[in-house]
Amino acid sequence: MSKICIGMISGTSVDGIDVAVCRINGHAQEAQIDLLAFDTVPYPDAVRAELLRLYDDQTDALARISSLNVIIGECFADAAMTVLSDAGIDDLQIEVVGSHGQTIWHQPEADLENALIVPSTLQIGEASIIAAKLGAPVMADFRVADMAVGGQGAPLAPYLDWAIFSDSGVSRAVQNIGGIGNVTYLPAGGAVGDVIAFDTGPGNMLIDALVARLTNGAQAYDDGGQIGMAGEVDYDLLAKLMQDPYLDMAPPKTTGREYYGTAMVEEILADRPVSADVITTATAFTARSIADAYGRWLPQMPDEVYVNGGGARNPLLMRMLADALDGTPVRATDDLGVNADAKEAMAFALMAHDSLAGLPTNIPGATGASRAVSLGKLTRL
Amino acid sequence: MSKICIGMISGTSVDGIDVAVCRINGHAQEAQIDLLAFDTVPYPDAVRAELLRLYDDQTDALARISSLNVIIGECFADAAMTVLSDAGIDDLQIEVVGSHGQTIWHQPEADLENALIVPSTLQIGEASIIAAKLGAPVMADFRVADMAVGGQGAPLAPYLDWAIFSDSGVSRAVQNIGGIGNVTYLPAGGAVGDVIAFDTGPGNMLIDALVARLTNGAQAYDDGGQIGMAGEVDYDLLAKLMQDPYLDMAPPKTTGREYYGTAMVEEILADRPVSADVITTATAFTARSIADAYGRWLPQMPDEVYVNGGGARNPLLMRMLADALDGTPVRATDDLGVNADAKEAMAFALMAHDSLAGLPTNIPGATGASRAVSLGKLTRL
Repeated sequence: MSKICIGMISGTSVDGIDVAVCRINGHAQEAQIDLLAFDTVPYPDAVRAELLRLYDDQTDALARISSLNVIIGECFADAAMTVLSDAGIDDLQIEVVGSHGQTIWHQPEADLENALIVPSTLQIGEASIIAAKLGAPVMADFRVADMAVGGQGAPLAPYLDWAIFSDSGVSRAVQNIGGIGNVTYLPAGGAVGDVIAFDTGPGNMLIDALVARLTNGAQAYDDGGQIGMAGEVDYDLLAKLMQDPYLDMAPPKTTGREYYGTAMVEEILADRPVSADVITTATAFTARSIADAYGRWLPQMPDEVYVNGGGARNPLLMRMLADALDGTPVRATDDLGVNADAKEAMAFALMAHDSLAGLPTNIPGATGASRAVSLGKLTRL
Repeated sequence: MSKICIGMISGTSVDGIDVAVCRINGHAQEAQIDLLAFDTVPYPDAVRAELLRLYDDQTDALARISSLNVIIGECFADAAMTVLSDAGIDDLQIEVVGSHGQTIWHQPEADLENALIVPSTLQIGEASIIAAKLGAPVMADFRVADMAVGGQGAPLAPYLDWAIFSDSGVSRAVQNIGGIGNVTYLPAGGAVGDVIAFDTGPGNMLIDALVARLTNGAQAYDDGGQIGMAGEVDYDLLAKLMQDPYLDMAPPKTTGREYYGTAMVEEILADRPVSADVITTATAFTARSIADAYGRWLPQMPDEVYVNGGGARNPLLMRMLADALDGTPVRATDDLGVNADAKEAMAFALMAHDSLAGLPTNIPGATGASRAVSLGKLTRL
């Protein structure tokens, strides 16, 4: 019997709340998921400002975090109601809401100099508020359960990749190219124990930052790969970039904005002015870092690669990735019928649906957890 | 079928973790609860110090709260294992653990000058850690659900009072006299909608603080009421204390350490030296504030009063309370077969057990909630 499940997440950039309303039939690899509605609902300006301020200024943090937990719960509930209403489907009976919430702290490693700072993660956006406003059960707080069994609490979206993209005959890599690149490797046959996922390295972040420099901020990204296509690869610079020590680390591993942000841009531009060539080279670095990761950390090269995220809209990056992979087919996940923008929110709808049934919903090969567990806490008022 | 359920709570004094291991048969007013083991397990010194420091110094609060959530989860799990092991019952199959956690913020009222500070409450002690260590489902985070439907999130223990102390023929007041005094009024017949609970005013806090002053810290409380018994009531002072504006507030209402702490002691001692008479008078004030609350805020004077908490061990306070109540029987809850020390932890065992069955577990007449809801979030790895 098909069920209406809502998945919601707001990312660390705090832009807004992704809401995916899904019809789900069956569990795990049997699941059929139809996306009924999707949108990103921005936070009210004052809430976004307070969230960003919280990182820099922790005065009165207890009162502020306690309050934000409630306020963000209200924002998530309101976002769901807006998306349901806009789609004209607010009369649907909701089986469960899967709410990731808003991460305000994520620390996969201990602080070796302070025994009171331990691996931990903190998502807020009170599930009880969402349950009260939507009149539906809410599954929330997914990451902590994975960390409780030794995982890094991320990435979690590979559960959806495994459930709906696995193929009985061919192995696939699902490559997200957002700010950061991350891969989910799905072995042929879809054995969950053989799924691997990790951050491959830079996604669009480095290219975007260089484009902003070249255009003095007029462009935020290389639209259609046109700037990169006008340049030439600087192979000396490419070789230097490929010495990036992150590429040498074995999974599970995650990286972030701090690593591939301003510092790396400054390093690149220390020896040369910004130019189309530098952007072409950064694009090549991004493509090769992905291919390099596959060669070193996957048990075999995948038969097919599906890309989602903004990188799928950069033809130069897609071509360079196919080149670096020696002709392995590289396509957008849209070819498999999944809206790439909605994918992460859909993952939390499916995880909520399957955790509600008591099924394990983490992927130990993605998070490093010692075992598969059912993620999420259930609020049923 | 009887089930083993564990209830755990640490109070705001951060002394340690109360663990009650119960056998529960039946739900709500049908429940039979046997206490199999009980103890209070202190926090490790470094954890207690960090918790206390968090109130005063919120530098790096995000990392510290996120970490403390995990560390306190571990402390709770360890406390349960210690109590089970000490009692030689660590082979029992646990149905559910009800963990209140550690409150680090509780704000029932909004800040009218800051829209970003709203009614909210924050308990930490990660349920996933407890579930992983004990291999049992954990119900936790009880207060937020009550606040999501307009309640103050406190008091919650009246659910246990209602379930096990209600009588078909007589009305009862269950009076806790800890630091603060609070009452649960149980109408004859036990209709949950007629249950009322609120903080009556001071418990032992004022007496304790004055005893510490009189003895220069050598005594922390009036052992057996002996100091108070040696003094005389100062009726002028008593009349002045009875003008306490808290007594005029209508329930639902809660008060705390900040209100009946140092400031009130200083006010009392501004006009007179500390003496046995002052302690006798503070004892009378505590007794009369309770009787005053019953007269003003209960629908009728209760037929019987049962006292738990440290106040039940102060014969002067018990006698003064009976006097103030014009002869209503005043006894300790031990007379009803319930260990007064274990009662609050037992309440969370019963709430977890009943919420697991989908039953409502808040008392709207205690918290001010707009409706009865099932409290707690279920973690089942």
